[in-house]
Amino acid sequence: MFKKILYPVDFSSLTERCMDFIKQLKGSGVGEVVLVHVVDTRYASSVSWAFPENFMEDEAGLKERLTEKIDPIKDELEKEGYKVNVRIEKGNPFVEILRVADEENVSFIIVGSHGVTHLGKFLLGSVSEAVLRNSKKSVLLVRK
Amino acid sequence: MFKKILYPVDFSSLTERCMDFIKQLKGSGVGEVVLVHVVDTRYASSVSWAFPENFMEDEAGLKERLTEKIDPIKDELEKEGYKVNVRIEKGNPFVEILRVADEENVSFIIVGSHGVTHLGKFLLGSVSEAVLRNSKKSVLLVRK
Repeated sequence: MFKKILYPVDFSSLTERCMDFIKQLKGSGVGEVVLVHVVDTRYASSVSWAFPENFMEDEAGLKERLTEKIDPIKDELEKEGYKVNVRIEKGNPFVEILRVADEENVSFIIVGSHGVTHLGKFLLGSVSEAVLRNSKKSVLLVRK
Repeated sequence: MFKKILYPVDFSSLTERCMDFIKQLKGSGVGEVVLVHVVDTRYASSVSWAFPENFMEDEAGLKERLTEKIDPIKDELEKEGYKVNVRIEKGNPFVEILRVADEENVSFIIVGSHGVTHLGKFLLGSVSEAVLRNSKKSVLLVRK
């Protein structure tokens, strides 16, 4: 039985489509959604050296801004009756997503994929692809 | 809203795990499951030339044997209240799976992945990987 799911929030155009899936899953016994947003810090140190003025924002300020962006998503799910847990992490997105998935012991992860084609193949998106490839948990890949 | 899902039956050890997922989805409004099994004919002509005695079985016989293997899966889902449609196709598995997904206009496809590791990466399995990469539909990748 799946009870708890992880949705990595990226504010992409697929958010609405992923939310539709999550809402419908309510009926199947899922009761809790963990929303995670990962601040990608892989290139931060080199970029901040080159453009220090862009990185003056303190971490508390960044966290506050992100929380404000995630709040409507949280509210929407709570209105559906979900228990919602918001986590803001820093690091390499897919690594953090999989770490949180393990820590929270979720049943599966929902990721979006734009399905852009390149040379006749759909591209999955680098974070979604890395999650699919490396996750020990089941993954729902949501297409446009 | 998702109403109809496609489950490519491969009789692997992940069947039970996939069935658990499908059963739980009943509560979320899914009402119909299409079970598809693809007889892989990609190498059939060359192999049948080398070992003709293995390919004497007529197509009707093969279809009957497969139907017998799929029947318990069908019954199990019907017992859960699903409408079940069984399709047996021939060809390149992922191509046929995606063709049936389009024809049947399913909401998403459920595929299993053994999660065998190789050089520190999970392997998705060739059919699952091709489905994920090429599907215009959403895909649920079920892990062990």
